[in-house]
Amino acid sequence: MIFETTILGCGAAAPTGKHSPSAQVLNIHDKLFLVDCGEGTQMQMRKFKVKMQRINEVFITHMHGDHYLGLMGFISSMHLLGRKAKLTVYGPAELKAIMELQLKASQTFLEYPLEVVAVDTAAKQCIYDDKSLRVYSFPMKHRIECCGYLFEEKERKPKITKESIAHYGLIPSQIIQLKNGLPVVLENGSTLEPQTVCEEPEPPKRYAYCSDTAYSEKVIEAIKGCSTVYHESTFLESEAERAKSTFHSTARQAAQVAKAAGAKRLILGHFSSRYATEELFKVEASAIFNNVSLANEGMVFTVH
Amino acid sequence: MIFETTILGCGAAAPTGKHSPSAQVLNIHDKLFLVDCGEGTQMQMRKFKVKMQRINEVFITHMHGDHYLGLMGFISSMHLLGRKAKLTVYGPAELKAIMELQLKASQTFLEYPLEVVAVDTAAKQCIYDDKSLRVYSFPMKHRIECCGYLFEEKERKPKITKESIAHYGLIPSQIIQLKNGLPVVLENGSTLEPQTVCEEPEPPKRYAYCSDTAYSEKVIEAIKGCSTVYHESTFLESEAERAKSTFHSTARQAAQVAKAAGAKRLILGHFSSRYATEELFKVEASAIFNNVSLANEGMVFTVH
Repeated sequence: MIFETTILGCGAAAPTGKHSPSAQVLNIHDKLFLVDCGEGTQMQMRKFKVKMQRINEVFITHMHGDHYLGLMGFISSMHLLGRKAKLTVYGPAELKAIMELQLKASQTFLEYPLEVVAVDTAAKQCIYDDKSLRVYSFPMKHRIECCGYLFEEKERKPKITKESIAHYGLIPSQIIQLKNGLPVVLENGSTLEPQTVCEEPEPPKRYAYCSDTAYSEKVIEAIKGCSTVYHESTFLESEAERAKSTFHSTARQAAQVAKAAGAKRLILGHFSSRYATEELFKVEASAIFNNVSLANEGMVFTVH
Repeated sequence: MIFETTILGCGAAAPTGKHSPSAQVLNIHDKLFLVDCGEGTQMQMRKFKVKMQRINEVFITHMHGDHYLGLMGFISSMHLLGRKAKLTVYGPAELKAIMELQLKASQTFLEYPLEVVAVDTAAKQCIYDDKSLRVYSFPMKHRIECCGYLFEEKERKPKITKESIAHYGLIPSQIIQLKNGLPVVLENGSTLEPQTVCEEPEPPKRYAYCSDTAYSEKVIEAIKGCSTVYHESTFLESEAERAKSTFHSTARQAAQVAKAAGAKRLILGHFSSRYATEELFKVEASAIFNNVSLANEGMVFTVH
């Protein structure tokens, strides 16, 4: 089942000619989730052919402008383009008042239900739960309150092949019983144990979005067991002091987090505009962790 | 002396692949003024090589998102890029609280003085006055409170050519006296009348920015005698009913305003995205007014 992220923006602070501010769209089992929404996100969606009306949930990490200033334009454009479906925005407590004040000033009465959910950025918690997915927020270590988001597939039931079903003549109630780990008695009186016919399902995939944060053991703890980690690397180690004082991470620190969390893949982003090229971020992180990718606008990463 | 406007955005409502939301930068006597600031304005400045730090005054017409949602990003980027000079933002009364709430949420303490001036959108008034320029706000007729802005050069003193100065042996105090319309007595005892040596200065140029507004006699009154008028034309006459109900103008109405105001040039903008091409706007307006231009991003119009 599909599980991928499209990068709409991976630059830090002020937008540059090279990078847009933070935003990415996750497609998980054909549902779209927007994570962060910097200025110009709606234009990036148009550019990279992301269908904005398919997004029903938005997750904002913190109240620095490069992570949320595109939100009002996004919300307003969806209204102008005829949206009727509910939109839920998760983010820091300050978000709701800011949005309401702006909607009031423009005398915009949205034609779709909008719910703004205040996220407690101080503790890990499950904030979204559907048939096949849970989303957790978890605290990050930044200059202001900030949380990351963890997208976690639910455990799937074991599979039973069509061949096994035919071979044993299984009926639906028996299939359910076997998938739930219970033996069934067949027509011939013999007992069929679940392990005889059940195949292990794919392990759940987990994607963690960690931007913006200083290096943090707590982040490692919160995202343990992730398959893919997107971690900010605003700076290189040569700017480690600046990273520390501004509550950001270096590429090396991002790799340490990914390694300690047991991830299979690390995507680096939120690059400072002071660097002409980002190749050194990959070099630095690769000394610690062996599967590093550099984010760029328009790139699509599959979560395995 | 330079008097020109660079179009950064001239689309209506939601941004499209074709147009950005409203914003333009006026260069008047080498001072830069920003009028409206839709989402992505700072990116457009970068694209069209407008030096954002040279802008000291911003004028916002109203609180619809397509006219101001780029403001926080613009203000924040100037801070991040080291601005120290004061910035003054003129706009509807609601603007200040929105800006303050957002600065507080991000815990941004600007390193430059920011003044937000509430404009009374109900009456024409002079809101800016320097050595050579006055800026007036004036009421427009829109769905919410909205004002246009009129940029007016001050009357210049008459000129006296170098040749005249040498010919009559004029000293600085005599030159000032003549420019002020008073005769002077020369060394030889004769009287020199100002009209003998003074040349008429160029008449003051005036630029009016009218977006967003329905057709309004009051707007005509406010901008009478303008050299160049930028007037919104969201719709064509075929959508006159829609223009009326949404408090916007058609191209024909924009031309009627420019004609009645005695303008020399009309620039049309704020085009609805429903039209694949804008050529018909020019055709429609040109039936009424003989010097019509269509705005487009990156275009620079000289005000004569």
